[in-house]
Amino acid sequence: MRTVYVNGDYLPENEAKISIFDRGFLMADGVYEVTSVLDGKLIDFDGHAARLERSLGELEMASPVTRDALLAIHRELVARNGIDQGMIYLQITRGAPADRDFAFPDPEETPSSIVLFTQNKPNIADNPAAKKGIKIITIDDARWGRRDIKTVQLLYPSMGKMMAKKAGVDDAWLVQDGFVTEGTSNNAYIVKGGKIITRERSHDILHGITRAAVLRFAAEAQMQVEERNFTVTEAQEADEAFITSASTFVMPVVEIDGAELGGGKPGPVAVRLREIYLEESRKAAV
Amino acid sequence: MRTVYVNGDYLPENEAKISIFDRGFLMADGVYEVTSVLDGKLIDFDGHAARLERSLGELEMASPVTRDALLAIHRELVARNGIDQGMIYLQITRGAPADRDFAFPDPEETPSSIVLFTQNKPNIADNPAAKKGIKIITIDDARWGRRDIKTVQLLYPSMGKMMAKKAGVDDAWLVQDGFVTEGTSNNAYIVKGGKIITRERSHDILHGITRAAVLRFAAEAQMQVEERNFTVTEAQEADEAFITSASTFVMPVVEIDGAELGGGKPGPVAVRLREIYLEESRKAAV
Repeated sequence: MRTVYVNGDYLPENEAKISIFDRGFLMADGVYEVTSVLDGKLIDFDGHAARLERSLGELEMASPVTRDALLAIHRELVARNGIDQGMIYLQITRGAPADRDFAFPDPEETPSSIVLFTQNKPNIADNPAAKKGIKIITIDDARWGRRDIKTVQLLYPSMGKMMAKKAGVDDAWLVQDGFVTEGTSNNAYIVKGGKIITRERSHDILHGITRAAVLRFAAEAQMQVEERNFTVTEAQEADEAFITSASTFVMPVVEIDGAELGGGKPGPVAVRLREIYLEESRKAAV
Repeated sequence: MRTVYVNGDYLPENEAKISIFDRGFLMADGVYEVTSVLDGKLIDFDGHAARLERSLGELEMASPVTRDALLAIHRELVARNGIDQGMIYLQITRGAPADRDFAFPDPEETPSSIVLFTQNKPNIADNPAAKKGIKIITIDDARWGRRDIKTVQLLYPSMGKMMAKKAGVDDAWLVQDGFVTEGTSNNAYIVKGGKIITRERSHDILHGITRAAVLRFAAEAQMQVEERNFTVTEAQEADEAFITSASTFVMPVVEIDGAELGGGKPGPVAVRLREIYLEESRKAAV
């Protein structure tokens, strides 16, 4: 049984509960981060901590812990649960006021809630899916307007995963006004003529921590990167495609709405970026 | 201390907890209803139960209880908490699977969660705000695309209430492509030349239970109703305006983005509709 962290306590997972008045439960008034673990160490902890602080700031929500305390909790959970490879999920909500009310509670009276738990994934680095690549469909992007804030409003991404499952594929890319925004829980990229193309940062997409690292590594490896919108047709006609996220790292995409890319095999840019990302991330892990 | 209902148990509110793995907490994967209580009886229970079933159906979520059982729980909570006037809040989520995953869990393995609690509001019928009317601002409608499903994704409506508070007014109306959709937690109406104008039902707005009742009562009272989009400017130039919701019934709006309507006093149509609504609802309460 996992040991999880809830508001200051390390608890067995079956005793980990929060009030029904928690605004994370009643109003989706919460933010989250997922940090990967390789060799028992945290990948890009500082990036996730910085984005967490930004999400909290955008929502005028107080952090219940310092960045140092957060790092200590992450490490304690890795140790207590013996995680070699996997993820640590972290969620902060605006806490549990005495009653349900749309208005934000006074943070002096209602402290934020904080929850963390581990997910053991022994194959996260050596993921068989990365060797085959994944297939995706595209669906309408019906999410709210501030996808740059990493909130727990994940119902539509969940619905998107189910649409993909029903279509017999692995995931879905979201399309707004004719252009791909991102995947259900990852950033989206295509490669054409050696150039890596991905949508630029705005309120429309999550500012991926893995995205930032991968684009930096790509630039360091002298790969060309263009941050701009692209259509589904352009994606289907690309040489290759891939996604990035904290838990999938770099994952090749080999089919988009039934159109095969690169003969249905992972492309060289995605494969190379995955190698570089894993290598560099392991070096920098804390 | 309130007695609340959580997954089959009546509990003191400070012991009412749900698992941190509940999808309502982690993913906003839940729906809700708010039913008003007048004279200890439920207003339009059947309407709320029917909409709940529709919300659950749209999300392929199973109901953990029958409509009859739901009615019994509502009545038990009213009795145990001695509610004469107030509300009953009900939330159903896709339950707490063993681990966090975007994909929906198998409903055979993961039963839905259900939570209900009362809110005592002795002034709900004789609300002083209804005599003065409320002031609103308009803000961009940044919510997701399926507002017809009553989900707990209420972060943006909460942010809207806070924007209103900071602007020194009572609430906000949401605007999409130049047209008012609805209020943060209510449907929006204007009255011009005796005609009641409100946006037609679609995925863009909640299909208000109070809205349906009020439009029916308006038609019965020979009032003219036009269901169509209207702009902020048209609203500011209207004779009067109002909102409807289960907890505010019919509430006059006397100011929109600083422009006073009807000399800053509740208009006759809103006042009359509130009277009719309260009278008819009390008659039909169960």
